[in-house]
This record gives sequence, C-alpha cells and structure tokens, in this order.
Amino acid sequence: MTRIAVALGGNALIRRGQPGSTEVQRANLQVAARSLVDLAERSGAEIVLTHGNGPQVGYLAIAADLAAAVVPPPPLDVLGAESQGQIGYLLAQALHDAFMARGIRREIAVVVTQVVVRAEDPAFSAPTKPVGPVYTEEVARAHAADQGWAIARDGEHWRRVVASPQPLRIVEAPAIRSLVETGALVVAAGGGGVPVVELSDGRYEGREAVIDKDLAAVVLARAVGADGLILLTDVAGVIRRWGTPDAEMIRRLSVEEAFEGLAAGAWPAGSMGPKVRACADFVRGGGRFAAIGALDDAAAVVWGRAGTRFGSGRLGLPREGARPGAASE
Amino acid sequence: MTRIAVALGGNALIRRGQPGSTEVQRANLQVAARSLVDLAERSGAEIVLTHGNGPQVGYLAIAADLAAAVVPPPPLDVLGAESQGQIGYLLAQALHDAFMARGIRREIAVVVTQVVVRAEDPAFSAPTKPVGPVYTEEVARAHAADQGWAIARDGEHWRRVVASPQPLRIVEAPAIRSLVETGALVVAAGGGGVPVVELSDGRYEGREAVIDKDLAAVVLARAVGADGLILLTDVAGVIRRWGTPDAEMIRRLSVEEAFEGLAAGAWPAGSMGPKVRACADFVRGGGRFAAIGALDDAAAVVWGRAGTRFGSGRLGLPREGARPGAASE
Repeated sequence: MTRIAVALGGNALIRRGQPGSTEVQRANLQVAARSLVDLAERSGAEIVLTHGNGPQVGYLAIAADLAAAVVPPPPLDVLGAESQGQIGYLLAQALHDAFMARGIRREIAVVVTQVVVRAEDPAFSAPTKPVGPVYTEEVARAHAADQGWAIARDGEHWRRVVASPQPLRIVEAPAIRSLVETGALVVAAGGGGVPVVELSDGRYEGREAVIDKDLAAVVLARAVGADGLILLTDVAGVIRRWGTPDAEMIRRLSVEEAFEGLAAGAWPAGSMGPKVRACADFVRGGGRFAAIGALDDAAAVVWGRAGTRFGSGRLGLPREGARPGAASE
Repeated sequence: MTRIAVALGGNALIRRGQPGSTEVQRANLQVAARSLVDLAERSGAEIVLTHGNGPQVGYLAIAADLAAAVVPPPPLDVLGAESQGQIGYLLAQALHDAFMARGIRREIAVVVTQVVVRAEDPAFSAPTKPVGPVYTEEVARAHAADQGWAIARDGEHWRRVVASPQPLRIVEAPAIRSLVETGALVVAAGGGGVPVVELSDGRYEGREAVIDKDLAAVVLARAVGADGLILLTDVAGVIRRWGTPDAEMIRRLSVEEAFEGLAAGAWPAGSMGPKVRACADFVRGGGRFAAIGALDDAAAVVWGRAGTRFGSGRLGLPREGARPGAASE
C-alpha cells in the first residue's frame, strides 16, 4: 500500500487578511478536506496528515496575554498542544464530512504529538521566530525582564521571538504508525509538534519554541515509512527567479538543484525555503516522491499534473482515473 | 489481558482553591501519574485513561471572553478540543516521566475525541451546567440576547449555562481500541469528549455543551471492551448518610443499592451522583468491576484495599504484589 505524508499550510484554515474565527476556519477547511478526500479516494493511499498552527497559536497567545491578570498564561508548549486539539478537531470533522459527502466512512484519528529537539540546538541561542501579540518597546522590554523573553523589533512594534529548533524524532511515532496501518487517516505533529527535549534520565521537558511544520513533516513521513511527501500551500509550486520579471514555475527540481538554490538564497527563509529543504531532504534520504503544490487540488500534485516535483521518483500509484488496486503506472 | 478504563477527576490537575497555572497542574499531575504508573506496572493491565476538564475549559472560556475584542472567541466545542490538547499533553508527559522514573518505556497516545450525543436530548431544552466567566446580570442578559446563550444566576453573579447531554458513542472508538491493543496507554475522551450530533447525512456537527466525564468514561470503557472501570477523585469513596453525623464510607455497594440511593437523592448531582451512576451502569451492563476511590492510590482501589466497589465481580488480576502474569486471585 502506498503511504503519503501530507502537510497543510496555514492557509488551509485562515487565509491572509481573514479574521481567525471558527466559522472562517470551518469554511476554509471544507476546501482542504474535499481536496484531501479526493486524493485519498482516487489514490487508495494511506495518508498521514500534518498542518501548520501559526495563526491559531498566535491567537491563543494573544488571548492568554489579555487574560493574564485573571488566568495564569500557559507557556508556549502548552499553547501549541491546545492548538493541536483545536485544529485537529476542526480538521477531523471537516474530513469526516467530506468523506461522508462521497458516502465513505473512514476512521480519522488526531494524535497529540510531541517532537524531540536537541537542548543544545543552536537555534535556542538565537531566537528569531515572532510569536504572540505586538507590544510597545516599553512593554516588550518589561516582559523580557520579567519573563526572560527574547524580543525583537517587528515593523513599528516589538514582539516576543522564540527559537525554531530542528525536529529530531516524534515521540508518538509508534502509535501513529499503528493507526496508519489500520487504515485510519491520522492527523499528527500539528504545528510541527510540541517541542520537547529528552533529559539524561529519559524524561521529556517542553520548550517554548516552534518547530517548522514542513521539517516536522519530513520526520513524520520517515517515522511512518511514507513513500511520498506532499506539501500543500497557497501557491501553485516553486518559482524560479522568484521576485523578478522572468519568474516561472518549476515543474521538476533535482535534489542537487534544490540544495544549490537553497545555498544561493533562491527562496525566502520564511516561506518557500523550508518547503524546498523539506522535499529535498526527504528525497535525498531515500523518499520516493516529494512535491509542493496548491491546497485545492492535491490529486493533481500527486499525479504530476500540477505543482513542483523533486527528483525523478514515482509513487507507483494506479494511473489517474483508474480504480485503486489497478496496475501502477 | 485485563483492560481497565480509568477516569481522573479534575483534582488530578487543579485542586480546589489553587490557581490554574501550568506549573500547578504539572506538580499535581506528578502525583496522579505516579499512582497510575504504579497501577499499570503492578497489574500488568491495559489502560485507557480519561480526565475532566472543568477548570481548564473554564479558563479558556474566560481568556476567550477577555480577548473577544481582538480575537473572535471560539465556540465551546472548540474550547473543549483545546482543553483535550492541553491536558492530554501535560498528562502524557507526566505519565512518561513517571514510567521513566521506574525505568519503563511505555507508549502513551492522546487521541482528540468526539462523543456523539442526541440532537433531541432533553438536556438541550433545559441547560443547567455553568461554564466560563461570571457576569453582572446586565452583561449576562446582553450575551443571552446577542449570542443566544442560556444564562442563570450563580450566587451573586450570573453565568452562561449549557446542556449536559448523555454520551452515546465515541467517534474515535476504533482508533482508541487499536491503540490499546498495541499496549499503548491511551488518553481519550478528555473532558467527556467534544459533544457532536450526527446529522441525517452522516456529518458531525459540534454542540456547545459539556458531557459528564464519568458517564463518558462508561461509554469509553465499553468501546474498548474494558473489564474494569475506576473513577479516581479527591475523596476516599462513596459515603453513606452523606452530610450527617453518621456518615461512613461504603466499601461495597450492590447495583440495586446504588440505583435505590440515586433514586432517593442520596448523593449530590454535581459530584458523587454521576460517579455512582456511572459505576452502577457499567456493572449492570456486564462490566466485571467498578470502583470509586482516591486519586493517589489507584492500585489500592483496584485490589479492593480502598475505595468503594460496585457489585461482586473481580478483575482477575494477579494477587497484589505478585508479578503480572502470575495466577489470578
């Protein structure tokens, strides 16, 4: 059975400029869920799904901050776990509904996920990732003094910044693998997973950091032995000569070209860069198929009609349009 | 293999009068986790665990309310899912650490859980369960008018009240069962589960309600085919002549006595009542063993050294102190 790890970009839930209400998220998730169910049904593949949590954890941090006088604000690892519950629930419901619209009853399981990072990861000494509310410089400096936050200027305002360490290992990998093997569509490592370090006595300890969701998707894909890694986002694929008049979409990218482009800074660190790195890493590590494409047509990305493919591997799926189980192309 | 469903009372995380900080919850969870790990190790049983979320979902509702001008407040079903992520994460970490302190590596999996209730449940027409912040009468009435809330007086203040419908079925039951069968300690149906109704076309729709955690534990126990149901709380067991000078702890209660007592209002509806009902229901429905006891010594409750047992069934565990796998008592 072909197994595919799929990562949903933040735009699956909240698009740029939209308010982060549950209503808006439910409406957006319908689109993502239809696309994923289409992929699942036409490919017959086992699917493990992960998703971003940037806007949601930001909202949770803002609410926690505004309520701080009444309710002790949870640390960022706990807010991350809350966002996994929130998004996992909404996503599971949207997927169930999209399956039911096709008359398919499929098990969906959301696993709250911790991801191990190194306590000595250099990211911890140079936090760069803004999270939570914007502050005046004065308030930001007070937080820094009181709570030990790293802070940084963000336009006219100041914000807390946290580390974005490399994901090493998924704590719940065996459970996730077992569930995938039962045929359940598993949602895991939401928001890149809750970052924890493993202490010398084997205990886990949460860290107030954020893990890049696309890099966590690679770790997740390997943990379940996925054949393919698909990163779905709000653009059609990777762009060559990005930001110039000669920009064009890349349909195929070799792993060498990908690493060369990354080294040359061809893609922005905050958006396409980590996605290209994730796909290149996955294929270099032995993954058969990796692709980046648009959220609303996952099947087209998997069958190579759209998006950017990495390397020359194939998933070995039936020809598009053939029934699952037919001879592979 | 003996299989036990265990429900943790809210006091496992936040004791009466304590502030709801993550620090406090982590410290309290250490006690609960040690007790559960002791039970797991000495019994050799498969364990599925559920927990309350009253204080946590209350805090989330208060924070959402205070931040409403900036961040659209999520409905109660979404807050419930957030609390499952939050508590599940903290609980999984505490359990892992308690296992590691004994040199045991055990898989722990937290499953975000929806629980089906009937759209026609009479509870929906008479909401009684207070949730979220306290308001002045004026503000409460404004919320009722704007958002369609049911409200009720609570001492000097007013609060939102929601329905507490009967749990029927756990959506993620197959996934939870699969995980339990792999030997993982599974945390599920947190806070009684997120209440959803099943529409005529098979879709699920969240409801702003709360499900009694102990009644959900019965549904969970049946869903995984548990032999035993253990409800752990902050008192030593069920009290006879509760609130009188002749009060005494009950060591054994027949199912008939339990239902008679419930019918006579022997135990308060807000605390011991649902626990007694849950245990009596479980045993009447064919469960072998049910007991209510103190959080900090789960093993004593299971082996009948403490707490209140329902009916006369036995779990068939090895004699206490014997190694798992030895002849059963």
